[in-house]
Amino acid sequence: MVVAGFAETRTQSQQLASVLGCDWVGIDVHRFPDGESRVTVPLGLYDDVIVHRSLDLPNDKLVELALAAETLRSEGCRRLLLVAPYLCYMRQDTAFHPGEAVSQRIIGRWLGYYFDGLITVDPHLHRVARLDEVVPLAALASLSAAPLFGHHLAARSDRPLLLGPDAESRQWVEAIANESGSPWAVANKRRIGDHEVELTLPEKLPRASSVILVDDVVSTGCTLAELARQLAGRGVERLEVWVTHALFLEGALERLHESGVTEVLSTDSVTHSSNGIPLAGLLATAVRDLIEGSLSCHRMGH
Amino acid sequence: MVVAGFAETRTQSQQLASVLGCDWVGIDVHRFPDGESRVTVPLGLYDDVIVHRSLDLPNDKLVELALAAETLRSEGCRRLLLVAPYLCYMRQDTAFHPGEAVSQRIIGRWLGYYFDGLITVDPHLHRVARLDEVVPLAALASLSAAPLFGHHLAARSDRPLLLGPDAESRQWVEAIANESGSPWAVANKRRIGDHEVELTLPEKLPRASSVILVDDVVSTGCTLAELARQLAGRGVERLEVWVTHALFLEGALERLHESGVTEVLSTDSVTHSSNGIPLAGLLATAVRDLIEGSLSCHRMGH
Repeated sequence: MVVAGFAETRTQSQQLASVLGCDWVGIDVHRFPDGESRVTVPLGLYDDVIVHRSLDLPNDKLVELALAAETLRSEGCRRLLLVAPYLCYMRQDTAFHPGEAVSQRIIGRWLGYYFDGLITVDPHLHRVARLDEVVPLAALASLSAAPLFGHHLAARSDRPLLLGPDAESRQWVEAIANESGSPWAVANKRRIGDHEVELTLPEKLPRASSVILVDDVVSTGCTLAELARQLAGRGVERLEVWVTHALFLEGALERLHESGVTEVLSTDSVTHSSNGIPLAGLLATAVRDLIEGSLSCHRMGH
Repeated sequence: MVVAGFAETRTQSQQLASVLGCDWVGIDVHRFPDGESRVTVPLGLYDDVIVHRSLDLPNDKLVELALAAETLRSEGCRRLLLVAPYLCYMRQDTAFHPGEAVSQRIIGRWLGYYFDGLITVDPHLHRVARLDEVVPLAALASLSAAPLFGHHLAARSDRPLLLGPDAESRQWVEAIANESGSPWAVANKRRIGDHEVELTLPEKLPRASSVILVDDVVSTGCTLAELARQLAGRGVERLEVWVTHALFLEGALERLHESGVTEVLSTDSVTHSSNGIPLAGLLATAVRDLIEGSLSCHRMGH
């Protein structure tokens, strides 16, 4: 068994190899001026290869994963396990308008075609309850970073109010609260466009001088920035954001700071200055479970 | 039969529909801030759909094509024919270094999985002689724009020297020369990096006051710019570039003009200010041939 990592999360994949006690190898990607990618895999891997790649900004990475997976197979690799701490295309889980591609299902099948197993963290599942409805593989692990955040909070002396932006965030907020004994609440959210949301705070929101806004992913940060603004005038002195996947696009970090957020904490699923919760231990346990359990050799359909 | 086109080559796909005498429909693509694409296909298409898309800057487009193809199939479309005037990933036709993905084959299989047929123009085939070694489909058409350029030149009163940059360009140069009766030659090229090439003019290059540099694709334009520079001091007064696929990346047009090129002419395979040779007629003939001939209903492997 080896862990194969890419440049953008080299440290994280090396930590995973270290916890697993196996070798790390690099998969090299060169992007040509014409937008094509050249992928080079290490040779001499004839057993299980754990391919580690988070799928933020996914389209280039998906094509490169296909090139890497097919090349590893043709070089004789037996089983390919994808560790994608951030899984892409999980939001489009239905056709919101007629004719829309249900990309969650299509990309899920696509990943199931190239890999024998998949491990991910806090996938954005909403109308679909389970990952195996999306990715047609027996060897699947959908992990949650909430217990890690919960332990982190339990080790602190204060018990801030945990606040999620919408009903979908309730699972994370409640799980962190359960580990730490903090009070919690969730707001109501209605999305109006890519950059606009309508938020309503819960009517009986407890007063708190310290609040942590909790969500699975921050992309543009508009939702949490709006939530932060709605807390203004309520006596909040310390306002933090805790998030599993720190995409932080288009000035999201500045947007949060301007809205009164003082600190941001994220897992290292996507490389970002706010990373403070390493996932290597969580991922390694799941890798061992799948390798010893349900991961069977998969034959690609071609 | 309908032609389904994308925004970046809307005019070209509408011209194709017009020549074919069929309806045109648009496939809508929205790119979210997080790099994911939302694809919306028209409903009510239950027969043959001609999907027109050139695959320059390919990775986003490949993912979007997969989303579109699967959604069209699930909506009941019977046969999907891809018209990709510019076909991507044709250069990496072997592992130049150990472990390199032979992306030509992998992307070729990938297209063969989603579509029932493929039409392209001047694919960059080098070590591989035929498109059917790359794309596993019976319904294939590999067209050449050289006769169109040849007719264009034959209609002119002058007979400029046609000059290709390397042995690979010989097929286009010779084909254009055959249509127009122009003199022709090809240089020798050795690629040193993404932006650097070593070129040697043929020893017995005929003197000419008017020269047309001919190639299948201009990406950064470094090769043809170097060729233009080597012609300096040889009495060339009019120096043109004729190219099938006008990628024109990273200031390529400026680079050519600075090297003495006065005019650039391209087909409309990729939308560019130099487009002057429409492909619609050529493509329409091939579409009719495939629809009436070898295009059989394909079952995707999933």
